[in-house]
Amino acid sequence: MIELSDIQTAANRIQKHILATPLVFSQAFSQMFGGDVYLKMENLQKTGSFKARGAMNLILALRDQIPENGVVAASAGNHAQGVALAARQAGLPATIVMPVGSSISKQEATRNYGGQVLLEGQTVSESLLVARKLANDGRMFIHPFDDPLIMAGQGTVALEILQTLPDVNRVMIPVGGGGLIAGMAVALKALKPAITITGVQAAVCPSAVEAMRKGRVVEVPAATSIADGIVVRQTGAGPFAIIHGRVDELVVVEEDQIAAAILLLMERKKNVAEGAGAVALAALLGNAISLKPGEKTVLLISGGNLDSPLLGRIIRKGLIQSGRIMRVNVMLPDVPGALARLLNQVADHKANVLHIHHNRSRRDFPVNMTAVELELETRGEGHAAEIESALRDAGYTLMFC
Amino acid sequence: MIELSDIQTAANRIQKHILATPLVFSQAFSQMFGGDVYLKMENLQKTGSFKARGAMNLILALRDQIPENGVVAASAGNHAQGVALAARQAGLPATIVMPVGSSISKQEATRNYGGQVLLEGQTVSESLLVARKLANDGRMFIHPFDDPLIMAGQGTVALEILQTLPDVNRVMIPVGGGGLIAGMAVALKALKPAITITGVQAAVCPSAVEAMRKGRVVEVPAATSIADGIVVRQTGAGPFAIIHGRVDELVVVEEDQIAAAILLLMERKKNVAEGAGAVALAALLGNAISLKPGEKTVLLISGGNLDSPLLGRIIRKGLIQSGRIMRVNVMLPDVPGALARLLNQVADHKANVLHIHHNRSRRDFPVNMTAVELELETRGEGHAAEIESALRDAGYTLMFC
Repeated sequence: MIELSDIQTAANRIQKHILATPLVFSQAFSQMFGGDVYLKMENLQKTGSFKARGAMNLILALRDQIPENGVVAASAGNHAQGVALAARQAGLPATIVMPVGSSISKQEATRNYGGQVLLEGQTVSESLLVARKLANDGRMFIHPFDDPLIMAGQGTVALEILQTLPDVNRVMIPVGGGGLIAGMAVALKALKPAITITGVQAAVCPSAVEAMRKGRVVEVPAATSIADGIVVRQTGAGPFAIIHGRVDELVVVEEDQIAAAILLLMERKKNVAEGAGAVALAALLGNAISLKPGEKTVLLISGGNLDSPLLGRIIRKGLIQSGRIMRVNVMLPDVPGALARLLNQVADHKANVLHIHHNRSRRDFPVNMTAVELELETRGEGHAAEIESALRDAGYTLMFC
Repeated sequence: MIELSDIQTAANRIQKHILATPLVFSQAFSQMFGGDVYLKMENLQKTGSFKARGAMNLILALRDQIPENGVVAASAGNHAQGVALAARQAGLPATIVMPVGSSISKQEATRNYGGQVLLEGQTVSESLLVARKLANDGRMFIHPFDDPLIMAGQGTVALEILQTLPDVNRVMIPVGGGGLIAGMAVALKALKPAITITGVQAAVCPSAVEAMRKGRVVEVPAATSIADGIVVRQTGAGPFAIIHGRVDELVVVEEDQIAAAILLLMERKKNVAEGAGAVALAALLGNAISLKPGEKTVLLISGGNLDSPLLGRIIRKGLIQSGRIMRVNVMLPDVPGALARLLNQVADHKANVLHIHHNRSRRDFPVNMTAVELELETRGEGHAAEIESALRDAGYTLMFC
């Protein structure tokens, strides 16, 4: 268990080495969701996530007990970078075991912070076994969440929030292994007992929700999520002991809501959040939580390490969902000029052709007809509807796919 | 002409209505480019760009002279939102004429700030004619850059930079019509004559570069650019009179460099910049400017209003350029199982198939062979090379496209 004083000590210890990240009021989100919405931007933290806080606290606190081979950790992402940076600050070597398939950009970032990257294991669990073995070889193993010094370090985010916004009513926090919300809950409830603490998990991996329901930590099935940073199959025992008495509610969000939240943060706040970092906003978007007018609510944007290919896919999906990419099959007579006429219609309505496929071999079509798959970039649902009715008015048969 | 005192007056006038945006040191960019690199984040300004400053200054200064029908402006983007917001703050109606094809999201944003949007004209020049007509009808016309109050408002960015970083050596500023750099140059050279001011334009529309060369404003051919916010065919006469004596150098950047700069800001700084907002970083990326060690350089990130479809295309292009998307044609024998065997090879190397097209009809192929176009997501150039050699070792003929 940890206490408020542990978190205050941590704050003093790491202050010079981490950033006091901005707490930003959002007019747009306040209008959308009814309360007064603030964003705590831990995506702008060093290493791109709050994980630098806990790692820094542990390594600086135990500096003198760490063997000369340094520290070792297993991680596919943010913990890797946090530990590498903290070890470098302390002048210690860091060995980070990452799964073979982990993203090149996260491997590179970890190396840039001075970490020695070992690619071992197909999953983080397998990497963990390798890391534990290396710990026997004169290195200190650093757990990503189930450790009092890690939790106390993560809890320092809460002190910054209370300093900037003393009359905050609610804090919404992503929950994976539970280290962040546990550390923050200790500080928040000690200094402001009336505050509401809302934990948010990905619906595909509700380990803390299940633990709360059963009153003990349980393992949930493995799953993949856009919010890979909080896909942890079992809540830490240490975090759970704290969460159990201090977190007011836990909610889950769906993958589509997480993707929409990432896109919204980008379009409205010019900020890149990773999936795990966007779940608090996703909970508002999906109406898992409704705010009262004037309720001062902080969304913890916990990290911003989103791979560009994934971001590209999220943007594309968001554009399709909001009608800004329109996909349609058009039935055409199989005669010269038919395709050109169709494309002239599309051009008249200023839609941009992203992809076209002329399919002569559909089994369900008469022999003198052919199908054209069109993917168009439009200005939104209204524009898409305008194109649709123009094509129907021109006599085309449309099939949406 | 404007003077330092105009800018100081503007700063006092607009202070309560705009944000003092963050000036952030970037460790990553400093390492990459040799100097000490700071980012002035006007993409986080209200309305997503610096344009709110000038509009706010003009409308507040002239509040009592503005007719009851309010103000009118023509813009496809940031000026539209700036004028709408400033008019709302002053309790005045704003009419914004936008080209018919302007992006839905920018129209929506302008309406959200209380502007009445009229879609008239195919280009901004045509919209401008309509706006001028509306101005005759009891509205005050607000020019986007060629106006002393607009320039003085934009110049307030410079005061904030000097306040936070008094020993700045160089400021790099995007240049379109010239209002921003003119206002900033007056303040910077008055308070710190030794500072270097570098203007950056898109190579496809070098209107200020040409004006500087000829000693007078000239019109350059129309062009399209990712940095659409600074595509202005002719520098303003008022701004040019200031730029001419105060800006130390003007450089241009290519489209690919702008795209790469947008991607870099996103991946490293978790920040979304629009094309015009990223040109200063692009000038460092493209080596148009080299920094001396310790040279304290501020890159003005002037705006963040980037349409998501364009961002999606930029990401995709960046991934292809950096080898994280690999496109290859593979020659296959046209027999059952051949494609499955190929895909098994790809799967063994953990590449993700984004797109596949099986083309039996290539004229240049023997009749018993077929071509498969593959688009794979890889972890980077190393991974792409690994897949390439594995496929060659397995006997496949590859053609890159």
